[in-house]
Amino acid sequence: MVVLKSVRPAISCSSFGFDGDQLVPLHKVSFVNLTLPASLLSVRLSSRNNAKLSLVQATKESSTASTNDSAAVFSATNGKATNIVWHKSSVGKVHRQEVLQQKGCVIWITGLSGSGKSTLACALCQALYSRGKLAYILDGDNVRHGLNRDLSFKAEDRAENIRRIGEVAKLFADAGIICIASVLSPYRKDRYACRSLLPEGDFIEVFMNVPLQICEVRDPKGLYKLARAGKINGFTGIDDPYEPPLNCELELPQKGNNCASPCEMAEIVISYLEEKGYLQA
Amino acid sequence: MVVLKSVRPAISCSSFGFDGDQLVPLHKVSFVNLTLPASLLSVRLSSRNNAKLSLVQATKESSTASTNDSAAVFSATNGKATNIVWHKSSVGKVHRQEVLQQKGCVIWITGLSGSGKSTLACALCQALYSRGKLAYILDGDNVRHGLNRDLSFKAEDRAENIRRIGEVAKLFADAGIICIASVLSPYRKDRYACRSLLPEGDFIEVFMNVPLQICEVRDPKGLYKLARAGKINGFTGIDDPYEPPLNCELELPQKGNNCASPCEMAEIVISYLEEKGYLQA
Repeated sequence: MVVLKSVRPAISCSSFGFDGDQLVPLHKVSFVNLTLPASLLSVRLSSRNNAKLSLVQATKESSTASTNDSAAVFSATNGKATNIVWHKSSVGKVHRQEVLQQKGCVIWITGLSGSGKSTLACALCQALYSRGKLAYILDGDNVRHGLNRDLSFKAEDRAENIRRIGEVAKLFADAGIICIASVLSPYRKDRYACRSLLPEGDFIEVFMNVPLQICEVRDPKGLYKLARAGKINGFTGIDDPYEPPLNCELELPQKGNNCASPCEMAEIVISYLEEKGYLQA
Repeated sequence: MVVLKSVRPAISCSSFGFDGDQLVPLHKVSFVNLTLPASLLSVRLSSRNNAKLSLVQATKESSTASTNDSAAVFSATNGKATNIVWHKSSVGKVHRQEVLQQKGCVIWITGLSGSGKSTLACALCQALYSRGKLAYILDGDNVRHGLNRDLSFKAEDRAENIRRIGEVAKLFADAGIICIASVLSPYRKDRYACRSLLPEGDFIEVFMNVPLQICEVRDPKGLYKLARAGKINGFTGIDDPYEPPLNCELELPQKGNNCASPCEMAEIVISYLEEKGYLQA
C-alpha cells in the first residue's frame, strides 16, 4: 500500500517537440510525494494510455516522474494495487479545438501584388465568422508594422519576414485557430519551409493565379507604376521573379471562372476546409 | 432617391496603423455601385459612428469610398434621406471576442528561473479551459525553438527575444485569446515596451515574487548549479540583475500566503480577469 502524501499539481513544460504530428511538451515533470513502506523496493510507474512514463529522480522525500504524453495518468503501483492516480492538468491543441469546434490550420494565400490576397483573406474571415468559426489574418504588410518592423526588403530580410510569419502562423494553428496568412511569398523554398513547420495537411496553400497584366492594371497601391518607373527595385513580377506553386491545395480563381467574386472564392476555400474536417473539432 | 445596384463585399485592407490604441486598417476600400438620378450633383458619405469616411473615386460606373473605422456603416445620403446602408464585412477583435465570449489580453508572468512561471501558466490555462475559455501559452523556452531560434543569449538578442514575444502576444490578444506569456524578462524597460504595445488594461503583469534562495534550491533545470560553477555567464539572479516590477497588476504568492498552490495562484489571476471583465465578451 502506497500512501499519497501530496502532489504538486504543477507541471513544468518548458521544452517542446513533435510527437507524430502534435507539438507536445517533451518532458512534463511532476512531483509526487509518497510515504512508502520500508518493504517497497521500487516504484513502477504506469499510465492508462501507454504514455512513456519514467522516473526521473526518487529521493527519500519525493519522486519525480517524467512523461511525454499530455493526457497521461500517473499511477504508482505496488504489484496489482494501483494506489495513486492523478490526471495531469495540461491543456493541449485537442482541448482548444474542442472549445472552438474547429481544427487549427494555416491557409497560406500567395500571389502577386494586386492579385487579391487581402481581399480573399477578408472575405474568408467573414465567411468563417458567419459560421461561428475563429479565424485570424496575418497580413504581410500588417506584420511588418510590428513583429517584423526591424526587417528591410533586401533578400535575406524578405526570407526572414516569411520565416517569422510561418512560425507565428504555426503558433496560431497550435492555438486551434484558422490562421489566414496573406503574404506575397514569391519563392517556393520559403513557402516550403513554412509548410514543413506544420503537420501534414494543416498547411493549405492557396495560389491567387491572376496574370501580371491584370494585377498591374489594378495596381491598388500604385507600386507597379513606381516599379516600372524604376523607383522600386526588385519588385516581384517586374524585376524579381514570382515562382508559382507546383502543388498547392487550391488555385483561385478556378479555371474557366475568372470573374469569381471574393465571396465565391471564399466559399471554395470553405468547402475545402469542410471536406477536410477543419470546421469541426 | 439613390438606388443601390450592387456592392462588392470585398474590402481591401492591406495597410494598417494605430487609431488611438487600436490597430486598424488605415484604408478600407469598398466598392459601391449606384444608380444616381441626374439631378443629384454630389454624394455625401456619412457614417453612424463618426468614422472618417471619404470618397476616393467616383466614376459613372461606381463609387469607391475609404474609411479608417472597421465598424463603419456606409451610407450615401441625398439631403435628409439615407438610402443606402451597408455594414462592412470585416471581422474585428470585437467579433472574435463575441465568438469566444471573452476579451483578448496578455497575462505576462515574470520572475526568476525556478519561480514557478511555467507552472502557474499551465495551471491558469487549465483553470480557464475548465471555464470554456481559450488561452494560449507563449513560453520563453518554447518560442526559442521556433520563432526565436535565430537568437542567442547575448544582451541585444535577449531584448529582441522579449520584443518578439511581446509582438506575438499582442497578435494573440487581438485574436481575442487570453495569451499567457511565461517569460523571465528581467529588465523593466523590455517589459514596459511590451506593455506599451497593448491597449490600457490589456497587459496584466504577474510577478512571481519568490526569493532567489528558494528558486536556487528548486533549481528545476539545474541551471543555478551551472551558474554558480561559472559554467553559465550572465545568469539572472547570480551575475545578472532581475528588476522586480514596480507597478505590476498582480504579485504572487500574495503576502502572508507563501504556500499557495499553483491552482490557488491561478484562481487569484482568474478572479482578477473576472473582476476586469475579461471572461465575458
